[in-house]
Amino acid sequence: MPTPNVIRIQRLQKLISKSRLHALLITSQADWYYLTGFTGEAGALIASPRGLTLVTDGRFTVQAEQELSGVQVVLQKDGLYRTCGELLKKQKAGKVGFDSNQLSFGNWQVLKKAAGGTVRLQDVTGMVQGLRAVKDASELAQMRKAAILASEIVESAIALLKPGIREFEVAAEIEYQMRKAGASGVAFESIVAFGPRAALPHARPTAKRLRKNELVVLDLGAILGKYCSDITRTVYFGKAPTRIRLWYQAVREAQAAAIEAVQAGRTCGEVDSAARGVLAAYRLDQYFVHSTGHGLGLEVHEDPRLAKDQKTPLASGNVVTIEPGVYIAGVGGIRIEDDVVVQAGRNEVLTRASRDFIEL
Amino acid sequence: MPTPNVIRIQRLQKLISKSRLHALLITSQADWYYLTGFTGEAGALIASPRGLTLVTDGRFTVQAEQELSGVQVVLQKDGLYRTCGELLKKQKAGKVGFDSNQLSFGNWQVLKKAAGGTVRLQDVTGMVQGLRAVKDASELAQMRKAAILASEIVESAIALLKPGIREFEVAAEIEYQMRKAGASGVAFESIVAFGPRAALPHARPTAKRLRKNELVVLDLGAILGKYCSDITRTVYFGKAPTRIRLWYQAVREAQAAAIEAVQAGRTCGEVDSAARGVLAAYRLDQYFVHSTGHGLGLEVHEDPRLAKDQKTPLASGNVVTIEPGVYIAGVGGIRIEDDVVVQAGRNEVLTRASRDFIEL
Repeated sequence: MPTPNVIRIQRLQKLISKSRLHALLITSQADWYYLTGFTGEAGALIASPRGLTLVTDGRFTVQAEQELSGVQVVLQKDGLYRTCGELLKKQKAGKVGFDSNQLSFGNWQVLKKAAGGTVRLQDVTGMVQGLRAVKDASELAQMRKAAILASEIVESAIALLKPGIREFEVAAEIEYQMRKAGASGVAFESIVAFGPRAALPHARPTAKRLRKNELVVLDLGAILGKYCSDITRTVYFGKAPTRIRLWYQAVREAQAAAIEAVQAGRTCGEVDSAARGVLAAYRLDQYFVHSTGHGLGLEVHEDPRLAKDQKTPLASGNVVTIEPGVYIAGVGGIRIEDDVVVQAGRNEVLTRASRDFIEL
Repeated sequence: MPTPNVIRIQRLQKLISKSRLHALLITSQADWYYLTGFTGEAGALIASPRGLTLVTDGRFTVQAEQELSGVQVVLQKDGLYRTCGELLKKQKAGKVGFDSNQLSFGNWQVLKKAAGGTVRLQDVTGMVQGLRAVKDASELAQMRKAAILASEIVESAIALLKPGIREFEVAAEIEYQMRKAGASGVAFESIVAFGPRAALPHARPTAKRLRKNELVVLDLGAILGKYCSDITRTVYFGKAPTRIRLWYQAVREAQAAAIEAVQAGRTCGEVDSAARGVLAAYRLDQYFVHSTGHGLGLEVHEDPRLAKDQKTPLASGNVVTIEPGVYIAGVGGIRIEDDVVVQAGRNEVLTRASRDFIEL
């Protein structure tokens, strides 16, 4: 049976041929890892129906020889994109695809100049991400493990909450527990936000101490076996006032409606609307200041994006976060987030922590 | 006395005027933090001699209002770069500078289209990084703390080494200790490499266990008060054979020569040559597969770059890493790295751990 890499490369080569490209220049680390397993942080992969070439620098050549088979490895000279351009020129490449989100304007200029007049660079943004968005069984198995780890960690972080503990102390414990469980790191800087700081959707942990009668938002994710997880839970430290119970109830219902809408064939915009509609019924939609979720995989933010009016339909194998929230300046915020896989005819929630309202 | 931000903005405004730009579009998080203190992760800052405008999305508007004063905050609509382009168009902006390393080709296209025909986008890469490369006294004070923290952590990591410990266990302890000491996180994924894995300059921690008679490379850095540190130490677990003692001696001498060359007015290429020359005398230069060092500050890799033939002269206030190494496939690697500030007439090494050869 061919390895996942072989299948993925064959799929990509079909897309390259179908788009009548001579080659595709792959400049995203997640993309080249997905196709070849190369874990180096710098380089570029040139894929064509005839084969694959990795261009990288001296820090990664030994690693490339160890990790790759059937891929030609070229040591860059006078810069990565200059070498790529010269290689394409030598191949008399014609039309070469690239991802305009994954190439800086400066590098595009270097590449274009080195490739010369006969090479035409064509923006085919998202070609590899499109393949990555549909997870195979081995990826889903890994993502289940990453999601369960994040769920355990969020529950153990809730158990740590006590008067006077600092946001960054909780963050330190979160990351230590993840690492000890074998995660290679955090999928993103953990969010630990107490009281009014919870009104900032992307609050970074500070020295703030936990006090009675504060909301606590915990948003964290692990990278386990290269795949990311992402979970948020919100708890109340004390006996919550009625309005906060009501807000929590609204967010929980909004999340349930959006999870219900995660079905193959439904559009990303419909999932977003499902959450937004529930919050509107509670007159809280104005406090929901971000989109409902995002794809998850080798990167913590990838395709598809679950935002307003997004027409992309969900497909079996997509993994997305569902994370509606409300944020009230001066008071705090509430967000509940889980990771969900689109399956044929149903969906599967990968994360496992209770969504019941918790008062500590 | 004006705050650092006011002085930095004034310096930038002078550069903008001198370059006859209507405005500068700042698209790097480190750049906008340096100028304004805004800690949000998404947005763009438009700076002109008349004032500053931050464009961001709903996740960061409350945070922006809290963190900024004297900066107009605009909520993006239909995308960040579309809003930026439309703002510039409305201002009849004329020539607008941008950093081509900090803007993707895709976003450049969106920006250009929205800005319309009268706005001319001019590549002025490195304008804010040029300011950032010269640290002021408050930045150096913070960087000293970050460097001392990294030095203490590397020493405590060496103390953890024992037969059977896994690379990722050491990495977990490193990051936990940093966090507990107040670091907001690691400056980069810590490198913990045992035995032959130490031959990979950018090895990621694995489940590999430490055995007798292996080299150990520890390369780590903390972000403390927003500023990065970066230190590497190499030790031998056992009684080292003669050739390894010799390689260590060569790297140590190469590093000392390069540190000695860190002087205001010397070029970056001269510092690189100083290290490379010593290794050549030992016939080890072919195993030194990367450059000698890089600037350090709000980012772990910034200007100036200490690479072969780099003509940029060092200036007082620059902070750079000095990190020569040799890598022998199948055996292991040796790297020694410290953080050094260029001062008028001398230099100052910020990191503090012993560079003596340690056998455990």
